[in-house]
Amino acid sequence: MPRISNKGISMPESPIRKLVPFAEKAKKKGKKVYHLNIGQPDIRTPEVALEAIHNFSDKVVEYSHSAGFESYRIGLAKYYQNLGIDIVHEDLMVTTGGSEALLFALNSCLDAGDEIIIPEPFYANYNGFSISSGVTVKPITTSINDGFTLPLIEEFEKLITPNTKAILICNPGNPTGYLYSKEELERLRDVVVKHDLFLISDEVYREFVYDGNDHHSVLSIEGLDENAIVIDSTSKRYSMCGIRVGCVVSKNKTVISTALKFAQARLSPPTFGQIAGEAALKTESSYFEKVSAEYVSRRDVLIEGLNAIEGVICPKPKGAFYAIAQLPVNDADKFAQWLLEDFDLDGETIMVAPASGFYSTPNIGINQVRIAYVLNKESLQTSIKILEAALKVYPGSVL
Amino acid sequence: MPRISNKGISMPESPIRKLVPFAEKAKKKGKKVYHLNIGQPDIRTPEVALEAIHNFSDKVVEYSHSAGFESYRIGLAKYYQNLGIDIVHEDLMVTTGGSEALLFALNSCLDAGDEIIIPEPFYANYNGFSISSGVTVKPITTSINDGFTLPLIEEFEKLITPNTKAILICNPGNPTGYLYSKEELERLRDVVVKHDLFLISDEVYREFVYDGNDHHSVLSIEGLDENAIVIDSTSKRYSMCGIRVGCVVSKNKTVISTALKFAQARLSPPTFGQIAGEAALKTESSYFEKVSAEYVSRRDVLIEGLNAIEGVICPKPKGAFYAIAQLPVNDADKFAQWLLEDFDLDGETIMVAPASGFYSTPNIGINQVRIAYVLNKESLQTSIKILEAALKVYPGSVL
Repeated sequence: MPRISNKGISMPESPIRKLVPFAEKAKKKGKKVYHLNIGQPDIRTPEVALEAIHNFSDKVVEYSHSAGFESYRIGLAKYYQNLGIDIVHEDLMVTTGGSEALLFALNSCLDAGDEIIIPEPFYANYNGFSISSGVTVKPITTSINDGFTLPLIEEFEKLITPNTKAILICNPGNPTGYLYSKEELERLRDVVVKHDLFLISDEVYREFVYDGNDHHSVLSIEGLDENAIVIDSTSKRYSMCGIRVGCVVSKNKTVISTALKFAQARLSPPTFGQIAGEAALKTESSYFEKVSAEYVSRRDVLIEGLNAIEGVICPKPKGAFYAIAQLPVNDADKFAQWLLEDFDLDGETIMVAPASGFYSTPNIGINQVRIAYVLNKESLQTSIKILEAALKVYPGSVL
Repeated sequence: MPRISNKGISMPESPIRKLVPFAEKAKKKGKKVYHLNIGQPDIRTPEVALEAIHNFSDKVVEYSHSAGFESYRIGLAKYYQNLGIDIVHEDLMVTTGGSEALLFALNSCLDAGDEIIIPEPFYANYNGFSISSGVTVKPITTSINDGFTLPLIEEFEKLITPNTKAILICNPGNPTGYLYSKEELERLRDVVVKHDLFLISDEVYREFVYDGNDHHSVLSIEGLDENAIVIDSTSKRYSMCGIRVGCVVSKNKTVISTALKFAQARLSPPTFGQIAGEAALKTESSYFEKVSAEYVSRRDVLIEGLNAIEGVICPKPKGAFYAIAQLPVNDADKFAQWLLEDFDLDGETIMVAPASGFYSTPNIGINQVRIAYVLNKESLQTSIKILEAALKVYPGSVL
C-alpha cells in the first residue's frame, strides 16, 4: 500500500474542528449549543455586494487575470490610499482568501527548512501553512498576565538563526485581540531591517479596532518598504467569509512578481467572489460604524461577564472579535469536551476553542480557551451563565 | 534587503503567459489576435448554474464545510455513480478548482525531495505545483510521431527510485488530447501496485471524449482502490472556469482524511462557486451532446487544416480541446513571438503556446506548439490561413 506523506501526517487537525463530533452528538441529544468557538460572524453581508451577485449578466463565467480583475485591484489600491497607505495597484494581488495570501507570502519568502518567528498564541492555521510550505515555526511566547504584550526585541534576537527569514504577526490579533502600537511596529522594523527579514502582517481585522485606538499597518511604517508584506481578506470586513477573496500587498516588487508566479499556477481567484469584493468597496461607512458599535457592546458584555466569574481572567481585547480567557480548570481541552458531552444548563451548553491549539510551545495555555464574540448580546449573556454554572460543578475545577 | 525564496526563484513563468505582453502590443497597434493559446472556452455556462447564482437569497455569505457543502458532495457522488464509478460522498472533497485538488494530492502523498513521474508533454502548471510542494518531476517522454502513446512499463521502471511516490497522468490529456485505453491504465495499475506508488489522474476533460471512444477513470480500474486519486474540476465541463470549484476523489480513506487537514487550514472552498457547481449537476445531457458535437467539428476543421499545411504534423486528439502540432520552424518560441510582433495577414494574426513549456526535458518539443480549439470554426479556418501564410515567409522556416 502506498504511504502518505510525512507532511500530511504532521499536519495538525484544526483546534476549532476537533470538538465538532462532540457538538454534533450534543445537538442530536437535543442540547442547544452556543458556538463561541468559531469566527463566523452573524453580521449581514453589505447589500451592495449581494446585489452585484444577483445582477451578474455574463453568459460565460471566465477566468480572471491571475492577479485578479484589474478594476478590482485599482479599487483596492484606493481603499488602502484612503487609509493613508501609499500603494498602487501593481503592489497588490488578489488571492483566494487571506489563506492563499499567506501561502503565497510563505512560498515567495521561505524555503523548506527556513524558520519563521511568530508571537504565540497565534491563529492555529499558521501552523498548517508552515507545515505545507516545509517551514519551521519558532514561537515567541506572550503572556495573558500582561495582556499579551509584544516581547522585547532581545527576546526576538535570541531566536534568530541563519535560517530565520521572517516574522509573522496578526494585527489586531486572532486569538488575543491584541493591537500593536506604532512603537511596537517600529521595534519590529528595527529587528527585521537589521537581520534582513520579512515582516508579514496579517491585518484582516483592520476595521475592528475599538475605543478610539488607531490601527497601524506595517505598510505605513517608514523604512519597511522592502520588508513588509500585508495579508488581507474581505471575509471579516464585509462578513462574507464564503466568497474566498483576499489579497497580498507589498511595495517589494520582487515579492509581488514572485507571488504572481504561484498565482499563475492556480490560474485565477474566484470570479464571483471578486465581483462581490469589488462591489463591497462601495459599502457606506455607516455600515462599519454600526458593526463596530455592535462588537464593542458584545465585547464589553463578554469581558465583564467573564472577569466576574471566580477564577476567570480575560484581558480586554482592543480589536478583532476574539478573547483568550484563563479558566480555573486543569485542562481546557477536557473541559471543552465535557461541556458538550456531560453538561447542560436548562438544556443548553457552550462550545469553546481550547487555546492549546493556538500555542506552538507544548504545555502552554492548557487552562485557556478562545472565545469569539460573534453572537448577539443575549446569547453571550446566556453563555456566560452557562460557563459560570459549569465551572461550579466541573470535576476538573481547580478553584 | 531580505532575500526571496529559492522556490520562488525557480517557479517557472506560465508558458501561456510569457507572450502576453507581445499580444498586448500587437493589439495596441490595431492587429486582431486569434487566441489559440488558452483553454478559455467560449461555450455558454449552463443557464441552471447562472440562475442559482441570481437566486442566492442568504443574508450572510458564510464559510462552508472545509470539504464542501454536504449536499454538493452527495450530488457529486451521484454524478460519479452515474458514470459507473463506485464511490460515496465521503470519498471526495470539494476544492478550489482542480488546481487545489492537485496541490492537496501532492501535499498528502509526497514530501519535499520525493519524485513524481509524469508523461510529457504535460500541463505546464504541474511543474509549478511540484516546485511549490518541493517535489521533483521525472518526465517520461512521449512522441508526436506515434501520437503520444504511453511508453512501455519498462520505461517507467527505469525511472523508479526509492524516492518515487507517484505517477501523474492527465486523461484525456492537456496538451495532447491523448486518451488512455483501459489496457494502458491496467499497465499503469500493475506498475503502481508493484512499487507502492500513487496514481494521480487528472480527469477534468472527462466529458470531452470523441469518436465513440469510452473514457476510463482510474477509479474504475480493479485493484487500484488504495492507489488511485482523481483530480477533477467543473471549469471545462460546464464552461465556468471562473467559479474555481473542483474536487479530489479517492477510495483511500487516509488520502482523503489527510487532504481534509490541508483543506481545513484554508477554511473552505468558494460558496458561490459551490452553488453554481451543485446547480450545474442538473445540466441536461443535451447540453453535453451539443458541446461535444461542436468541439468535434472544430477539431476536424483544425486538424485537417493543419495537416494540409506543408511541413506541419498534428496527430488527431481523441479528447479535450487541445492539439500539439509540429511546425517547420527551428524554434517555436521565437516563431510565436514573431507572429505577434512582425506578422499579420490583412491585419490579423494568431497567438499559439510554444510547446517547450509543456516538456520538462530540455530541448524537446522546440518545434511544436499547443493549439486550443476553443474558438468557433470560422475563426479556426482564418487562423489556419494565417499560420499557412506566416510559415511561407517566416525567416526561421526550415521547409
